[in-house]
Amino acid sequence: METVGELSPSPRILLGPGPSNAHPRVLKALSTPLVGHLDPEFVRLMDETKDLLRSVFQTKNTLTLPISGTGSAGMETCLVNLIEPGDDVVVGVNGVFGTRMVDIVERCGARAVAMEAQWGNVFTPEQVQEALTRCKRPKLVAVVHAETSTGAWQPLQEISSLVHQAGALFVVDVVTSLAGCPVQVDAWGIDACYSGTQKCLSCPPGLSPVTFNQPALEVIRRRKQKVQSWYLDLTMIEKYWGEERVYHHTAPISMNYALREALRLVQEEGLETRFRRHQQNHLALMAGLAALGIMPAAQEGHRLWMLNSVLVPTGVDDAAVRRKLLEDYNIEIGAGLGPLRGKVWRIGLMGESSKRSNVLLLLSALEEILQQQGYRCTSGAGVSAAQAAYNRA
Amino acid sequence: METVGELSPSPRILLGPGPSNAHPRVLKALSTPLVGHLDPEFVRLMDETKDLLRSVFQTKNTLTLPISGTGSAGMETCLVNLIEPGDDVVVGVNGVFGTRMVDIVERCGARAVAMEAQWGNVFTPEQVQEALTRCKRPKLVAVVHAETSTGAWQPLQEISSLVHQAGALFVVDVVTSLAGCPVQVDAWGIDACYSGTQKCLSCPPGLSPVTFNQPALEVIRRRKQKVQSWYLDLTMIEKYWGEERVYHHTAPISMNYALREALRLVQEEGLETRFRRHQQNHLALMAGLAALGIMPAAQEGHRLWMLNSVLVPTGVDDAAVRRKLLEDYNIEIGAGLGPLRGKVWRIGLMGESSKRSNVLLLLSALEEILQQQGYRCTSGAGVSAAQAAYNRA
Repeated sequence: METVGELSPSPRILLGPGPSNAHPRVLKALSTPLVGHLDPEFVRLMDETKDLLRSVFQTKNTLTLPISGTGSAGMETCLVNLIEPGDDVVVGVNGVFGTRMVDIVERCGARAVAMEAQWGNVFTPEQVQEALTRCKRPKLVAVVHAETSTGAWQPLQEISSLVHQAGALFVVDVVTSLAGCPVQVDAWGIDACYSGTQKCLSCPPGLSPVTFNQPALEVIRRRKQKVQSWYLDLTMIEKYWGEERVYHHTAPISMNYALREALRLVQEEGLETRFRRHQQNHLALMAGLAALGIMPAAQEGHRLWMLNSVLVPTGVDDAAVRRKLLEDYNIEIGAGLGPLRGKVWRIGLMGESSKRSNVLLLLSALEEILQQQGYRCTSGAGVSAAQAAYNRA
Repeated sequence: METVGELSPSPRILLGPGPSNAHPRVLKALSTPLVGHLDPEFVRLMDETKDLLRSVFQTKNTLTLPISGTGSAGMETCLVNLIEPGDDVVVGVNGVFGTRMVDIVERCGARAVAMEAQWGNVFTPEQVQEALTRCKRPKLVAVVHAETSTGAWQPLQEISSLVHQAGALFVVDVVTSLAGCPVQVDAWGIDACYSGTQKCLSCPPGLSPVTFNQPALEVIRRRKQKVQSWYLDLTMIEKYWGEERVYHHTAPISMNYALREALRLVQEEGLETRFRRHQQNHLALMAGLAALGIMPAAQEGHRLWMLNSVLVPTGVDDAAVRRKLLEDYNIEIGAGLGPLRGKVWRIGLMGESSKRSNVLLLLSALEEILQQQGYRCTSGAGVSAAQAAYNRA
């Protein structure tokens, strides 16, 4: 085979649906020499990480830890640990990730009761109520807080009450929302949820923080049969992350170093400040894009701060624009998925990537590229509108 | 909560069952800024990594890639993709990892036909033949090449013929052996196998290289039902790692950077040179330990080069010795697991950790600590015997 050369990737500005850019301190933490996964120093690091995660999840849940896989492994962890064959499970399907949950629920031998909404829209409490009436005995209701495929922001509090009234558990996908907008696990009655490291936490992809409350844990303890995945079986994982320290699998040491550092950065900034930053950059970007005639794709009033889904203007070559952004400006933005393929752009402003300089550069680059394609927009309009939005903030 | 301080782990010499120490170039690769998981530059890196993995697995298998989880996720990947409910599966159980495979096989709804041997021993072709006769129609036979919990080195070639004569697939755990001793996937007729990054590849834990040949792939394509794990479903993962590049999950970018660099280092050293290095350090260590009166625990003629399992001498406090090695010398060695708890030490000489300076330092430290405990051995005997072994090599 040919010799493979030295690693030398281009310096990308990551404004897609994740990964986001990592802070230099996180990258430096990654390069720290290893210790063993049962070393007392690593055990201390695990405890610190659990504490930091509880703070960002806004929870007191004991069972709060990073699963050794990406966000999708976290999704599977929540579902395979809580579900048994024959269960009725309500899943909100309004994008890629709800669709994926239905797939996993069915692989668990359970019945998925799909609650559907148009991609880009969110669910009303009435829809949840209606879906619950379609179940004999709903085991859990699962929804996506921040649908990365559509940019829709699902309100959770009212749904949570309905779910609990029906005697079910409330499971939420907070992969994209965590650390970018409020996620109050305890206050909102979320029984189990999972996130990813590569979105608003701005840590590289590879771990999935999860948290389970006491009722969820009791459901796991009362299982009639073993969890179908050995790797994701929380009854064993909690013994490694808990006081027993029983070896389960070899924890990804370097990724845990990185997550701890990313969480330290979140703590230093403060959650409220971090959320406000995400909101302001979102508002500035949307103002700038509107001035260029580019309009939001997600339902009004339910648009995410960290994932801006916008309509590709008519006559514009979606792929060519994204390619030019990457090649000429080193900027990555995301394409549409599924029914939104070719119709939307997904612009992520997550964690470290959510900053004024990125918003202004993207608007400037986009204007230039669109004009080259014959698209008409006033020169400088995007950047000006964004600056005005920052000045108003 | 308390403020969590800057990451500052002790500079450990990792001579346990993994992780091993990572080369500075691998740590540097980890700290490289991120690109997206669908970036053309990352796609090229994926192709390079597949080529490098084929070279270390000694295979032409198209389906050769790193699973986004640790070695245990690779074990689960091999089993859940190949097994369907009701299948007969022969598993060699002579340590922790065979035991784990039985557990996973049963979670797949299959019948595990356990083939047992004393921990530390290997299986004879006759034992395999006998186990095969206990099956109606064996779907696959799974054994561990290098049992990390015992230090036993399982010969594979004769078994492979028997397995194929019985019409079954041959699945092998090469987590600890890969890149430390010969693993010839094609020449030995291994249909599917999995490894881990943190052993002889000397990359941090977090990925599991796997390879599947055509017959194994056909078994997956002919499945009657979906793979029970969505995250580990190769029918989808191969579309992301293959030419279609269909998004499945967000690949762990940084860990893939590290793996590529670790594989480049293997390529630069050359497999044969690397194997010889592992062998020589093993022989020197065993000679040194024998001179201190510390004897091997695994079956004679089947002792691994990279994982040296030795008997804790009578009257010596196992845990105290390991604690002193860690605290006074920054050296980690492994404890015994299961029935070997308190009875053996597991000394890893894997990848970067397999070097003369580590062997000599460990022997010197061990002698000092043992003498402090009242154990009698000739001062300097271990180091001298090891040096003599190096001089003979």
